[in-house]
Amino acid sequence: MSEPESGACLVIGAGADTGGAIAHAFAQEGYQACLARRPRNADELETLAQSIRTEGNIAHVTPVDARDEEAMIALVERIETEIAPIEVAVFNVGANVNFPIAEMTGRVYRKVWEMAAFSGFLMGREVAKRMDTRRRGTILFTGATASLRGGPGYAAFAGAKFALRALAQSMARELGPKNIHVAHVVIDGAIDSKFIRENLPDVDERRSEDAILSPDAIAANYVMLHNQPRSAWTHELDLRPWKENW
Amino acid sequence: MSEPESGACLVIGAGADTGGAIAHAFAQEGYQACLARRPRNADELETLAQSIRTEGNIAHVTPVDARDEEAMIALVERIETEIAPIEVAVFNVGANVNFPIAEMTGRVYRKVWEMAAFSGFLMGREVAKRMDTRRRGTILFTGATASLRGGPGYAAFAGAKFALRALAQSMARELGPKNIHVAHVVIDGAIDSKFIRENLPDVDERRSEDAILSPDAIAANYVMLHNQPRSAWTHELDLRPWKENW
Amino acid sequence: MSEPESGACLVIGAGADTGGAIAHAFAQEGYQACLARRPRNADELETLAQSIRTEGNIAHVTPVDARDEEAMIALVERIETEIAPIEVAVFNVGANVNFPIAEMTGRVYRKVWEMAAFSGFLMGREVAKRMDTRRRGTILFTGATASLRGGPGYAAFAGAKFALRALAQSMARELGPKNIHVAHVVIDGAIDSKFIRENLPDVDERRSEDAILSPDAIAANYVMLHNQPRSAWTHELDLRPWKENW
Amino acid sequence: MSEPESGACLVIGAGADTGGAIAHAFAQEGYQACLARRPRNADELETLAQSIRTEGNIAHVTPVDARDEEAMIALVERIETEIAPIEVAVFNVGANVNFPIAEMTGRVYRKVWEMAAFSGFLMGREVAKRMDTRRRGTILFTGATASLRGGPGYAAFAGAKFALRALAQSMARELGPKNIHVAHVVIDGAIDSKFIRENLPDVDERRSEDAILSPDAIAANYVMLHNQPRSAWTHELDLRPWKENW
Repeated sequence: MSEPESGACLVIGAGADTGGAIAHAFAQEGYQACLARRPRNADELETLAQSIRTEGNIAHVTPVDARDEEAMIALVERIETEIAPIEVAVFNVGANVNFPIAEMTGRVYRKVWEMAAFSGFLMGREVAKRMDTRRRGTILFTGATASLRGGPGYAAFAGAKFALRALAQSMARELGPKNIHVAHVVIDGAIDSKFIRENLPDVDERRSEDAILSPDAIAANYVMLHNQPRSAWTHELDLRPWKENW
Repeated sequence: MSEPESGACLVIGAGADTGGAIAHAFAQEGYQACLARRPRNADELETLAQSIRTEGNIAHVTPVDARDEEAMIALVERIETEIAPIEVAVFNVGANVNFPIAEMTGRVYRKVWEMAAFSGFLMGREVAKRMDTRRRGTILFTGATASLRGGPGYAAFAGAKFALRALAQSMARELGPKNIHVAHVVIDGAIDSKFIRENLPDVDERRSEDAILSPDAIAANYVMLHNQPRSAWTHELDLRPWKENW
Repeated sequence: MSEPESGACLVIGAGADTGGAIAHAFAQEGYQACLARRPRNADELETLAQSIRTEGNIAHVTPVDARDEEAMIALVERIETEIAPIEVAVFNVGANVNFPIAEMTGRVYRKVWEMAAFSGFLMGREVAKRMDTRRRGTILFTGATASLRGGPGYAAFAGAKFALRALAQSMARELGPKNIHVAHVVIDGAIDSKFIRENLPDVDERRSEDAILSPDAIAANYVMLHNQPRSAWTHELDLRPWKENW
Repeated sequence: MSEPESGACLVIGAGADTGGAIAHAFAQEGYQACLARRPRNADELETLAQSIRTEGNIAHVTPVDARDEEAMIALVERIETEIAPIEVAVFNVGANVNFPIAEMTGRVYRKVWEMAAFSGFLMGREVAKRMDTRRRGTILFTGATASLRGGPGYAAFAGAKFALRALAQSMARELGPKNIHVAHVVIDGAIDSKFIRENLPDVDERRSEDAILSPDAIAANYVMLHNQPRSAWTHELDLRPWKENW
């Protein structure tokens, strides 16, 4: 249903689960999905792209190390020049780790921040520059429970997620009046992902009664945010299964 | 498009603006709109009902003093018995006042709480009882900027709105596992309402560029919340115009 | 150590535990403790007053139904006229209840609000009027975990505590520039009180290692807030034992 | 009044204003002040140390690049070995910058995080390890308005301050049960500092009526937090002048 001249939707962190579902959802809306992830996962990106194409929609594989400023500048430049204007950008990189404070190395603390906060800043800045010239666009950031509060072992992960939320708030206030919609989605619960399916013992029971976040249901909310009329924009919403305390 | 046997949507605070738009929106979804407001505004309720019927949908005028426990019990009983099961209930009563603390009377402080918090509790409890037996339903509460922080002169209004938010949070946690979706919508800005149109000097300019909250856009978010699949429910979202700092 | 002409410290909710410790602490600072509680607890007030006098300090028994506007106006009038100017006022009334939403009566929901929020408003307004004429004074409100978030069964209690926090925030912003310090103390844990000593099985073990909030330690923080120089005032602080997750 | 065998108080960010006042305050409490700041400010550290010694207290100049993991490990090792056990550690590094998102370079975004968050993590981890073996100690982090919300231009500064707050929360929850008190102080207003004195036009008027945060008043709150009995510990408090809206 999409046409070659349709706009681009960039998804950083286009994995098999949430990011992939978001890419599928925007492709179904007619956007050209630009799938970004670390180059070493390029094979999986191609698989995701094929599944989008199978539905008759458009997908491009655009691997990138999102922590690399020059690479991110080049990625956005390339999409804007060769593919289409970026109408929607989604930052969906996770980096959940948990270590007692005494065992957290500087290397890990820094890497978690680079993956989950610095990369988000780079994406946000680069797409904001383009959207500013067009006075139009949507930038969405994926948050987590750890975006709202710290806890034992979460110095690095909560630190990065708090920083990403600060980025979203700051960009929302600055860019809103430029007709660029920035929002932060707090995903507050277990997602029906490959990792969870392999590690959560009761996952089948949970899935059978929707007691685990469905990536497709999450993705529908990202599309909803993008489609909100500008007289009533949401800056932050939370998502969680109906049955939380399993 | 709705049929007589369709479920009911109860709107407490079904005024000409936000509440009316919410009633229209759920009527268009096929629900029988049950329009509640103080009896002295019964004429306006009838006008609203007619405009919903003009669109080919169903509306019932159900005036009530929402602060009156017996009246609220009777209202819900009557709707459930004579009209249809309540599938959605929306509490949308405002009571914005601002007085220096020294000038706030006990009467006003209490009345604001009765209108904006106690009434919400009564609605919430009565519909929750019915929804619990069916293990299905949505309960939505309208919040405001004053739901999140106090300020000079706002002891009464913020007090009531904070209390309503506590109600929404408590009900959401208790009723979620019963498949009842409770959510709180923070409306953070001026709404395109009769009051604002008469009092805000630049309202035409604001409306011309969507810089004031549209009741229809607000209402669309209430419908969206009701339609969220239960694997990913939102408990709270904010709504504001793209251009905030006019 | 206090003298007859010293200022008054009014404590609403001067029970055997936290409120009593706060009264003791301010009496030791040289204030005349004015002990307020429901008239039916007048005997206990007298016991508390005696224990303050035993330390060589001054205490007055001033029973009141804090939910009664006329009675509260009269109380503050009487203290100001017959005892001393109120330099510090502390609102320390609890009203913790927990009921499933379907079982919460309107009577209980209202009473909890009257005890824990409306009474606080009445005290706050009456003492603020007096302090305003002197451009000096401190007003302190006791909060709880339920001041910050709702939970199953907490519609009434969290509703009242949220409302009290909104009152504190609103008064702090309005009265700060009048040199009146308003602060809210979030007590986030079990207090070493009569109720807890009778109901918590491991209370002796907890007390032996300070893993339960000491009323005297709480009270020291109220005195600290009152003594903060006005260039650096605190509006809100939390208190909890070092060992939380018993 | 302090003796050579007294414990150490490490202050990272021991500048002329807040950090210096905190160092003075803990030195007056009998701790050996260990003054840390970037090596290029070593002269100013020496000046600060002299002023502490003039009061008859003990100060050590311990310059360090707080962003350098090896240097921070060595610093804490050296203090523990050559000076005294660290009983209190204060992280007080500021890094306030404001740039439109499009003009924020990756270099600046990263540097602000390294100064205001990563350094805090390094200090926190190193002193926590030592305090853990002794099951005793206090770790205090300085926050700002930007610790609680983002705003136009604040992507980097709020990002770093949010991350520092996440660190404080995570460490407080993990280390509290080890008898290590971790707290976060939100300084919400202009401080009477060299920078402000040179840039705020009405600073003299503000100072004359305490309408600007006094470093000494701030410091007194850090000492108060350290001295709180462990049955009632504060994790977060805010500080602001009585007259905010100048």
